[in-house]
This record gives sequence, C-alpha cells and structure tokens, in this order.
Amino acid sequence: MTLHFQREVDKLKRMILNEAAMVENGLQKALKALRERDEELALEIKKSDSEIDAMEIEIEEEALKILALHQPVAIDLRFIISVIKINSDLERIGDLTANIAARTIDLVKFPRLPIPENLSRMAEVALVMVKESLDSLVNLDVELALKVCDDDEKVDDLHKETFALVRNKVKVEPENIDFFLMIMGISRYLERIADHSTNIAEDVMYMVEGKISRHQQN
Amino acid sequence: MTLHFQREVDKLKRMILNEAAMVENGLQKALKALRERDEELALEIKKSDSEIDAMEIEIEEEALKILALHQPVAIDLRFIISVIKINSDLERIGDLTANIAARTIDLVKFPRLPIPENLSRMAEVALVMVKESLDSLVNLDVELALKVCDDDEKVDDLHKETFALVRNKVKVEPENIDFFLMIMGISRYLERIADHSTNIAEDVMYMVEGKISRHQQN
Repeated sequence: MTLHFQREVDKLKRMILNEAAMVENGLQKALKALRERDEELALEIKKSDSEIDAMEIEIEEEALKILALHQPVAIDLRFIISVIKINSDLERIGDLTANIAARTIDLVKFPRLPIPENLSRMAEVALVMVKESLDSLVNLDVELALKVCDDDEKVDDLHKETFALVRNKVKVEPENIDFFLMIMGISRYLERIADHSTNIAEDVMYMVEGKISRHQQN
Repeated sequence: MTLHFQREVDKLKRMILNEAAMVENGLQKALKALRERDEELALEIKKSDSEIDAMEIEIEEEALKILALHQPVAIDLRFIISVIKINSDLERIGDLTANIAARTIDLVKFPRLPIPENLSRMAEVALVMVKESLDSLVNLDVELALKVCDDDEKVDDLHKETFALVRNKVKVEPENIDFFLMIMGISRYLERIADHSTNIAEDVMYMVEGKISRHQQN
C-alpha cells in the first residue's frame, strides 16, 4: 500500500465518519423533537437532510476515484466497497429521519393525544442500533456488529406491537385516525432505520471477515 | 480489456439479467395474485424470495472477484460498481414483492371488500417502472432511464391518493380497519418498489454517463 493510497483511504474514512456523526446526531434530534413535540427542531432536521445527500455523493465519488486510481485488492478493496454500501445506508437513514421530522410536524396538531409508550421504546432501541452499528464501523468490532443484528428482532417485535395497538385504537376512536396513522408511519420509519443499521453491521462483518453474512437468519 | 476479463463480465451480465427476469416475473405474479385474490400463487411467490436472496450473494461475490482479479478502470469499473448497487435494489424489490404476497394472503380473508381502483393503477405503473428500468439496463438506454425517474412522481401521487382514500374509508367503516391497513401496506410496498426502480435507472445513467444523478430533483 503506497503512502498516497493510505492518505486517500484515511480521508475517505474521515468523510464517512463525518457523515455517520451527522446522521446519528440528526436522528437523536428528530427523536427529541418527537418526544417534546418541538416543531421548530423538526423543521431544522428536515432542512439538514440535503447536506447529507450532498455528502453521500461526495463520498461515493471519492470512493470510485480511489478504486480507479489505486485498484486496491483484498481487505483494502473490501473496505472501499463497504464504504460505498454503508454510505448509501447512511443516506437512507437520513431520509427516514427527515420523514420522522415531517410526521412530527403533523403530530403537533394533536397536542392531547399521547404518543404510545411502545413507540418511545422502539425509538430508543433504533437509536442504540444506529450508534452501535457506527461504533462497530469505527472500531471494526464484529462482536458489536453481531449485537446490532440481534437487536433488529426487538425492533421488529415492537413494530408489530405498535401496529396491533394502533389497529385497536382506531377501531374505538376512528375520529383520531390521522394521529394514529402518523404513529404507524413513524413506527415504520424506525423499523426501516433499524434495517439499515443491520445492513451497516453486516457490511462491517464483511469488511473484517470477507464473508457475506446477510440473509443467514432467514 | 483481456479476453478473460470480457468473459467474466459477460457472465456477470448474464447473472444480473437472470436475477432481473426473476424479480420482474415475481412481481408480475404477485400483482396477478393480488388482483385475483389467489392465495396459492401468493404462497408460491413468498417461497421463491429465498432464491433471489441466494442469487444476490452470488452476484456480489462474482463482482468482487472481478474487481479483485482484474482491477478494471473507467467504464468497466463503473459497470461493476453499478452491478453491485443494482443487485441490491433487485433483492429489495424481491423482498417487497414477497411482502405484497404476504398481505395478499391476509386479504383473501375479506372477499367482499373491493381493492381500490387507485391501488390497481399504482401496481400497473410500478410494474412498468420495474420493466423499463431493467430494459434501460439491458440496452444502456439513458432516455428510458430518464422516463423511469419521471414516472416515480406518478406513483408517489397515487400513493398519497390511496393514503387519503383509506383514511376516509376507515373513518366511516372502522370495523374494516384490518383490510384498509393491508391496502395501505401494499400501496407503500409499491411506492418503495418504484423507488428502487428509480435507483436502478439512476445507476444506468451513471454507468453510461459517469455522473451521479440522484437527489437532483430534490
């Protein structure tokens, strides 16, 4: 590995960690805005999504440039390919975060209806999954990546519970359908955020071990 | 480009077109099962998803092998990278198709409630988008890829209409909430299938023109 290549890989690593920090920070704020029904904070998050979109393109271009110029092999090649895939998962988590913010803005119109406990728990687990998948990337920590994959089931279960709860609520309070559909929407976004964190964790495992591990739980 | 490299690229091309045909065929069947409320056909589709999952891993491994062995540059490199990304979009369309089949199996329990006209139109447009994104890949047809990106708006609009329709229906027939939530679920799956087709079309444009075109409509 040449010094020049190493320097470019370091730069790429900094870029993706930067993006990761921004995505994590955005989700944290979006969940705070949801908890506190803070419309202003939610609006702020919706706007910052375009910054993440711009970063995604920059990172992909950088990764492709490194591939073309240096033609890395083995673990170096796997690193670059994983960055390309993780980059796309991060951008989607950013999109879903912006969706949560948009639903939060709608939700503010229903100040008296409480947010189900279930959804708050789901938000906590999903945020931990995002954090831990990114920590597993920073430290190439396969154990932690495995934990993230396990946690995905918890979120899936909570999503199913929220779905059942909303369904029952709508039956008795059809007049509040708008509110409950928003809750269901947010539950779905959280579930997809958890899926993308799982993708990231699987890519970290691939990066370290060179084996594709997805679909194995199916 | 060596003859050996060309042969491996041809093989990879055959593999991804094979996967694409299977995904398209699956979606077509899933929509037929939905239209005709054919539980048996829906069950068949749910099962074939694991075949697509296996293909996805094979294709990715093949693409990584070519990258490592031949270190392609310029358009050849872009081709391989695009295959890796399109492969992942195809696998997700396969997943969403299996989800539609699962909802169809549930839907059979409500034989007297009609499927909204809107949803049927959405299914038609989404299927055309999948077909055309794959045709644009086969023929490296940028014009057609652009059309796919335009059609995405139609599906988004239809999804919003279905959402509004379901919302109003549930208000007056809360006892049918289960049915309407299934309709909404299917509408959402179709919307995401359209998104993945758009991703494929954007990757085709990147493959041909070497520029990343996504997020430009935002």
